[in-house]
Amino acid sequence: MEKTAQPARNFASDNNAGVHPEILEALARANQGHVVAYGDDPYTRSAVKKFEEHFGPDIAVFFTFNGTGANVLSLQSLTQSFHSVLCSAYAHIYTDECGAPEKHTGCKLIPLPHENGKITPESVRHAYHGVGDEHHSQPRVISITQSTEMGTVYQSEEIEALARFAHEHEMFLHLDGARIANAAASLGQTLRQATRDLGVDVLSFGGTKNGIMGGEAVVFFHPEQAHDFLYLRKQSMQLASKMRFIAAQFEALLTNDLWRRSADHANRMARLLEKEISCIPGVKVVWKVEANGVFAQIPHHSIEKIKKQYFFYTWMEEESIVRWMCSFDTTEDDIRRFAEVVAVAVKE
Amino acid sequence: MEKTAQPARNFASDNNAGVHPEILEALARANQGHVVAYGDDPYTRSAVKKFEEHFGPDIAVFFTFNGTGANVLSLQSLTQSFHSVLCSAYAHIYTDECGAPEKHTGCKLIPLPHENGKITPESVRHAYHGVGDEHHSQPRVISITQSTEMGTVYQSEEIEALARFAHEHEMFLHLDGARIANAAASLGQTLRQATRDLGVDVLSFGGTKNGIMGGEAVVFFHPEQAHDFLYLRKQSMQLASKMRFIAAQFEALLTNDLWRRSADHANRMARLLEKEISCIPGVKVVWKVEANGVFAQIPHHSIEKIKKQYFFYTWMEEESIVRWMCSFDTTEDDIRRFAEVVAVAVKE
Amino acid sequence: MEKTAQPARNFASDNNAGVHPEILEALARANQGHVVAYGDDPYTRSAVKKFEEHFGPDIAVFFTFNGTGANVLSLQSLTQSFHSVLCSAYAHIYTDECGAPEKHTGCKLIPLPHENGKITPESVRHAYHGVGDEHHSQPRVISITQSTEMGTVYQSEEIEALARFAHEHEMFLHLDGARIANAAASLGQTLRQATRDLGVDVLSFGGTKNGIMGGEAVVFFHPEQAHDFLYLRKQSMQLASKMRFIAAQFEALLTNDLWRRSADHANRMARLLEKEISCIPGVKVVWKVEANGVFAQIPHHSIEKIKKQYFFYTWMEEESIVRWMCSFDTTEDDIRRFAEVVAVAVKE
Amino acid sequence: MEKTAQPARNFASDNNAGVHPEILEALARANQGHVVAYGDDPYTRSAVKKFEEHFGPDIAVFFTFNGTGANVLSLQSLTQSFHSVLCSAYAHIYTDECGAPEKHTGCKLIPLPHENGKITPESVRHAYHGVGDEHHSQPRVISITQSTEMGTVYQSEEIEALARFAHEHEMFLHLDGARIANAAASLGQTLRQATRDLGVDVLSFGGTKNGIMGGEAVVFFHPEQAHDFLYLRKQSMQLASKMRFIAAQFEALLTNDLWRRSADHANRMARLLEKEISCIPGVKVVWKVEANGVFAQIPHHSIEKIKKQYFFYTWMEEESIVRWMCSFDTTEDDIRRFAEVVAVAVKE
Repeated sequence: MEKTAQPARNFASDNNAGVHPEILEALARANQGHVVAYGDDPYTRSAVKKFEEHFGPDIAVFFTFNGTGANVLSLQSLTQSFHSVLCSAYAHIYTDECGAPEKHTGCKLIPLPHENGKITPESVRHAYHGVGDEHHSQPRVISITQSTEMGTVYQSEEIEALARFAHEHEMFLHLDGARIANAAASLGQTLRQATRDLGVDVLSFGGTKNGIMGGEAVVFFHPEQAHDFLYLRKQSMQLASKMRFIAAQFEALLTNDLWRRSADHANRMARLLEKEISCIPGVKVVWKVEANGVFAQIPHHSIEKIKKQYFFYTWMEEESIVRWMCSFDTTEDDIRRFAEVVAVAVKE
Repeated sequence: MEKTAQPARNFASDNNAGVHPEILEALARANQGHVVAYGDDPYTRSAVKKFEEHFGPDIAVFFTFNGTGANVLSLQSLTQSFHSVLCSAYAHIYTDECGAPEKHTGCKLIPLPHENGKITPESVRHAYHGVGDEHHSQPRVISITQSTEMGTVYQSEEIEALARFAHEHEMFLHLDGARIANAAASLGQTLRQATRDLGVDVLSFGGTKNGIMGGEAVVFFHPEQAHDFLYLRKQSMQLASKMRFIAAQFEALLTNDLWRRSADHANRMARLLEKEISCIPGVKVVWKVEANGVFAQIPHHSIEKIKKQYFFYTWMEEESIVRWMCSFDTTEDDIRRFAEVVAVAVKE
Repeated sequence: MEKTAQPARNFASDNNAGVHPEILEALARANQGHVVAYGDDPYTRSAVKKFEEHFGPDIAVFFTFNGTGANVLSLQSLTQSFHSVLCSAYAHIYTDECGAPEKHTGCKLIPLPHENGKITPESVRHAYHGVGDEHHSQPRVISITQSTEMGTVYQSEEIEALARFAHEHEMFLHLDGARIANAAASLGQTLRQATRDLGVDVLSFGGTKNGIMGGEAVVFFHPEQAHDFLYLRKQSMQLASKMRFIAAQFEALLTNDLWRRSADHANRMARLLEKEISCIPGVKVVWKVEANGVFAQIPHHSIEKIKKQYFFYTWMEEESIVRWMCSFDTTEDDIRRFAEVVAVAVKE
Repeated sequence: MEKTAQPARNFASDNNAGVHPEILEALARANQGHVVAYGDDPYTRSAVKKFEEHFGPDIAVFFTFNGTGANVLSLQSLTQSFHSVLCSAYAHIYTDECGAPEKHTGCKLIPLPHENGKITPESVRHAYHGVGDEHHSQPRVISITQSTEMGTVYQSEEIEALARFAHEHEMFLHLDGARIANAAASLGQTLRQATRDLGVDVLSFGGTKNGIMGGEAVVFFHPEQAHDFLYLRKQSMQLASKMRFIAAQFEALLTNDLWRRSADHANRMARLLEKEISCIPGVKVVWKVEANGVFAQIPHHSIEKIKKQYFFYTWMEEESIVRWMCSFDTTEDDIRRFAEVVAVAVKE
């Protein structure tokens, strides 16, 4: 195995982290004998029950391979090809899925301006037009990301307002919850309070960025909207044959609040990182640190210097804004050492 | 966890089995610190080198989530939407992927008659027409499955003949190798001898049915055909963020010939099963047992009886043909006990 | 304008003919002042009323540019991407639309064997499986062509039986009526008797092969199935801006039974052609001449000889079967002269 | 035929006009005997030669049914599904084709801000990022509309600058020329000077808005980019069977400069309209009148009043901006009468 000069843990992304030990143990436990493939197995049924414990009854839950799969299948379940999806111009579905939503649903994605990573009913209203006109893609879904791509967190009333707008206009509200655990932890809410209770219709429930090995769940709060999901998932190449090994991870994530313990820790590390770097002259944290990411404007010359020791992503090239993410396994030591590297690079 | 009355191991499918211990260990070993996501990590580079050891240099290797993903991406790399793909009417891509190839590539799949699960240059030639005529989908790929959906194995000269036909007609040969390990083991060949050396252009290299947890590889023997693969994979929702955990499994599978040990065992168990049931009056094995599956015509009344104790699939309803698969973990005891159940059910 | 040595009228296809004078006059009459584009005009409303006169009330009628557009939009209105469409292996939608149905609907088209160009409930039943299984495309539409691609005509009870099978299995019956006029004329039926009254759900109503300049209509006999048609048509690039000029043609076609006069004539010419060539030794008419096409097996050597004077299509290369079509403007003289050319070529 | 109370000619759109008499005559002339369908006919060959006269040799020309078809096929010829197309946020392909480009190409369309209806290299540069990153749709085509959706006309150097940017970044320049005739006439240029000579790669050449009955042409200035066009067109349902009747219209349009005569007239009428309404208090022409459209901000209360007598489109609801288009058949009288209606409505 080739060696890398990088430190054991970086701040590039929460998906650069490995797997939480409780998840690995769950995988080993699930490796008993034969079970029917494709989800008709006791592990999957048991994991679905865990979701019902957290989100309440009368939901439909399905596992997919990854977040893009969960997002695309969520949207596909709610749309036909002549519909449009309204989302932030910085939404993951808009900028980071290589056009997967457009390719697979046929829909148009309408980018909206963001405020601190969030869209508002006003911005949605501005883009809501052409309804009933065959020349225009018909608005059908509002999609938001929680916590946002800018590390901020929608307040409950902000989501409720978007849900209200959606439902008053025969639209649906989809929530890309790749980091919903971080948001719920940040808000001190249960998973249900953070989603279903606010009017969300369909949730992409993420696990990979919160310490599982791989897999995502789509949760429908109106099961009739999942009517065709099994076929859509298979046709979209998102049906795992050895489903039990995705299910077992989610079962573990939802047991003994592992989801919250991990998210809380990552959030706390982000606040610590914010504190450590805020005092460095030339470093400016640009959005509120409400989840597990810190976005900072730093001197352009320092970016490459830091990258020599720590891999991470420049978020906005022109504005010299970078993104640093914390994970379930980030340590206080990691942060102090990183902050030192930043301080040195910025000063030079 | 709810209890199932079924025995520990069944004969429904090789994907009903769990994970080989060497694979689980490899997963645990890969769980060290942070690495860059999406495949730019030492585990993935190392696994790719393993493929080069087995298949030779100048290949392009990519990991996907599952076999349908690998097949669709293989075809998409070789086609445009107005092309057609010629395959057996019983090919997995034709019958068991819920139309994923058509949906994602836009291509037409042309079903050909099979002989013992195999297609021939003659059947391809018969379907090769309309070339240069804008009204017809243009033949572009021949796709075969090895070992076949009927448990048989193409002989080398049979694949060579199909490759020759393809290349003489500006077509490509794709091999769905969900069970290529079983075929190579059956033929006593290396993986390279069983694929690249016969003229195969693109290979879906399966692992899930041979004891890994999940994942598949696409191997291009002409790397220029993979020019756009990275984008197609991401857009097709088949890019794993924590790629190292797929790569590590394949590294283990290709180390110390685990792939062959597991496949050889499963093949041997299938031959034992064949032997045990062949002597039961009323049971007729319908295709040669050349890999890890046994296909038998059994009295219709017995099917439901056996299914009460062992879950499995009826392969051809009208002909009363069933499929029984062996896995890396099938034991001789499993087979004897199952054969007894069959014998009793058939006799009644 | 370059000269062609071919005779004024050939037997290649009914779409090689020009435009009926009554259609041209209608186009000129429609060329008055400005009207709203895209179908919200008096010509379109008037043409729709003509359809209601012929097919009865409570229908939904839309115009498209061509037959492929009408067929694809019919299917798209009835399906989702994980559905399948069952049709003859010689159906126009299966063989002559370059994969347009697959590309646009995402569906799988399942080819069925034909008998005299027709499919039967038995052949449909054989292909109707995998229902409720997420791995299989779900059967949703039976599509037939009337008159068939082999120049034969389904009898009323044959269509009724297919409609019954469809509706008993939660499927729909689509009729590709590129030559429905020839079929209705042949059967002595009204357009309604030939379609709606037999249980057809959606009809592609052809005009181009019956003397109009261009355009096709999709007729829904259950208007709720057309709920999204306006959007699907626009998105499928089948919405004409100067719609009045398609509408006016259909208005004329449905006025004073122009559709029947033209179809009757073409049918009669086909019977005459059959009579004239049947007596030529070496020429064998292979399917019943029930509409406006004659399919004949002729000596292979004669095909190129005849093509030197008359352009036409070889229908089945290996069987040496050719197709000769008659049009609204074919004359008895045309037929006698052509039959002489055939007789000479075959004899040589 | 039901009666409409509207005047003979309105200002809603140039596609509300009928057909120029020279076009109707050409259609009648083309109605002679049989010719081969689908474009292999003397009329089509002759029309293609006309294009070569205007645009020079070494081009590839194809006819489609409509502008959306021409645009989508142009883009499809230049892209794969993981590419993106950069265009004005008000481009017809972005706002008025019901998502057809996304659905058919799979690409993402990136909306750019416009200045007077035009995009600039600066706005393109701002959106040109993520190149080489598999997570992002890859920029591939810049698409502009000439004359623009705001009735303005790109100057030659503006198009050249966009072409240069495109070609320096391995992109292509597509020009949606639904009204290219109006632009060339406005600039006093030949069709070639207005397109090919500026670096345009592919042109959607419009006719419908300039007095033909229906049809559009796609002109490739690098024929190798049209390599697959025949298949793409057929599969996209844009292949006319009686092609001669589209070809004959374009032949007439390109003969004796009918295209320029009609466009010049429409442009002149727009300038007259601008002059007539500019002096009405409360009416403000918002973009330069450089082609055949006038965009005016008028008191909100007056819009519905005018619409009672003249059908037209509100272009920007919130800003109270309306669009009035002139056609080949607009008369000075039409304009004076319309201006009077506007004056009265605004004053009230």
